Amino acid sequence: MSEMRSLLRVCSDRPVDLADIDPRSTPGLPNKKVTGADTKLWARGEVDRIGDELATQQEMLFAQATVDPRLGRSVLLVLQAMDCGGKDGAVKRVAGAMNPLGLHIKAFGPPTEEERRHDFLWRIRKALPPVGYVGVFNRSHYEDVLVVRVNELVPEDVWRPRYQEINDFERQLVDAGTTVLKVMLHISRDEQRERLTARLDDPTKHWKFNPDDLDSRARWDDYQAAYAEALTRCDSDQAPWYVIPADRKWYRDWALAHLVRETFADLKLNYPEPDYDLAAQRRRLEADG
Amino acid sequence: MSEMRSLLRVCSDRPVDLADIDPRSTPGLPNKKVTGADTKLWARGEVDRIGDELATQQEMLFAQATVDPRLGRSVLLVLQAMDCGGKDGAVKRVAGAMNPLGLHIKAFGPPTEEERRHDFLWRIRKALPPVGYVGVFNRSHYEDVLVVRVNELVPEDVWRPRYQEINDFERQLVDAGTTVLKVMLHISRDEQRERLTARLDDPTKHWKFNPDDLDSRARWDDYQAAYAEALTRCDSDQAPWYVIPADRKWYRDWALAHLVRETFADLKLNYPEPDYDLAAQRRRLEADG
Repeated sequence: MSEMRSLLRVCSDRPVDLADIDPRSTPGLPNKKVTGADTKLWARGEVDRIGDELATQQEMLFAQATVDPRLGRSVLLVLQAMDCGGKDGAVKRVAGAMNPLGLHIKAFGPPTEEERRHDFLWRIRKALPPVGYVGVFNRSHYEDVLVVRVNELVPEDVWRPRYQEINDFERQLVDAGTTVLKVMLHISRDEQRERLTARLDDPTKHWKFNPDDLDSRARWDDYQAAYAEALTRCDSDQAPWYVIPADRKWYRDWALAHLVRETFADLKLNYPEPDYDLAAQRRRLEADG
Repeated sequence: MSEMRSLLRVCSDRPVDLADIDPRSTPGLPNKKVTGADTKLWARGEVDRIGDELATQQEMLFAQATVDPRLGRSVLLVLQAMDCGGKDGAVKRVAGAMNPLGLHIKAFGPPTEEERRHDFLWRIRKALPPVGYVGVFNRSHYEDVLVVRVNELVPEDVWRPRYQEINDFERQLVDAGTTVLKVMLHISRDEQRERLTARLDDPTKHWKFNPDDLDSRARWDDYQAAYAEALTRCDSDQAPWYVIPADRKWYRDWALAHLVRETFADLKLNYPEPDYDLAAQRRRLEADG
């Protein structure tokens, strides 16, 4: 299969236009799998299978940092999406395959009073995954050029320089040993309506609905434009942006699992050599009865 | 099935003696399940099934705190065990069934330089789960009356008052809306030898072995005595201690899943009522095309 990363990477040579990406498309899906009635089942099985691989990779990442923190690395998955884009579900299915002991998950809501008294990256830096961990940001510093821009929470001469500040910040992260994987889950306006309706119709989902979501929905085009500019300006080889068509949940999880797997593969992880004398420890254990 | 909590709760009316609890026993396991060749498979299936229930309970806990943080509650699972007792595996299997977004997991190692400059509960308080979250402590403040006592890291007149300080601390936690579930995974000295041997024999487990583990093993009886006193002095109806016989991993996970399920059941969780006008929001959504 062709590398999912090359299929899903945004092309930032020219301005990104999200209208060019069909949220119902399924790039990279093997032929004959697109339409079959059992495609969903097949994809879920694949996510389970890849999930086991991810769990092993995560354990190796953790193990290396345990044996020698100076050589340890970390991985940061940044997830962004419009409301109902499926961030929570994707985290549950893909990150949920790993041992929660090695996950470092942070959901960012509106900044608190204290956070507002600091620069916009302050709370982000505090939430970075330690060496050996897989961090997941459910929303992120990108909100500071998305909701902040669309709702004019700060003037343009404050938010516009943030693209560069974000790029600088992410370069520091990468230089310090963190692999950064940024993913936008891309849904259509129609799919969002369906999911919002489901939240209003299903009593187990009422809590997920927030009337503010309809305000954001009313500004759909502004958000898409803000996303497009963020993807264009903050995509780079060291901290690339990927867009996953996300109207089909099973495809979303399948594609994300692949992206994470390919990201781990680059790290060429192994279980570390012991930093103690194996034979001596064996003798000691055998001697103690 | 009889309640697992009543079967596994320590009896602190008289001093606890861990020698009275067989680490290979399987309290509460349905008849005919103890010896069957497929018992392990059956238990794993049960853990999966209960895991789905736990995921729903966790979501309701999270949902309530989202809608009204003042009414929200949290759950804190405190896990203690000798080395190789299975804490990591239990977290992976049982907490791993829940959405990692709602988990707040903290593993406590030796205190850092900074942590040592504060009272022993300082780092513990900082790691408590927020309202709506399920917290898991992999080791905990109990280390301050376990390893600290056995290795005489502080004099007795410092560690001995800690039982009372822990009880006071946990009462405050419970009063503030946290349900505290304390579990010791109880393995035998023989089982520990087997697991340590496996760590030395299997290259994918070398990193889990720490020569210090053999020092602790050499003081097995002192540790068992320190555990027994902690269980005796810090068991209470509001923050009870449970001991899970843990030589059999499948039983360990099965029993822990039941304990967590029963703990959730007491909270009588439900999906919260919406705090907005459903009909009005439906009209608004329908109007927007």
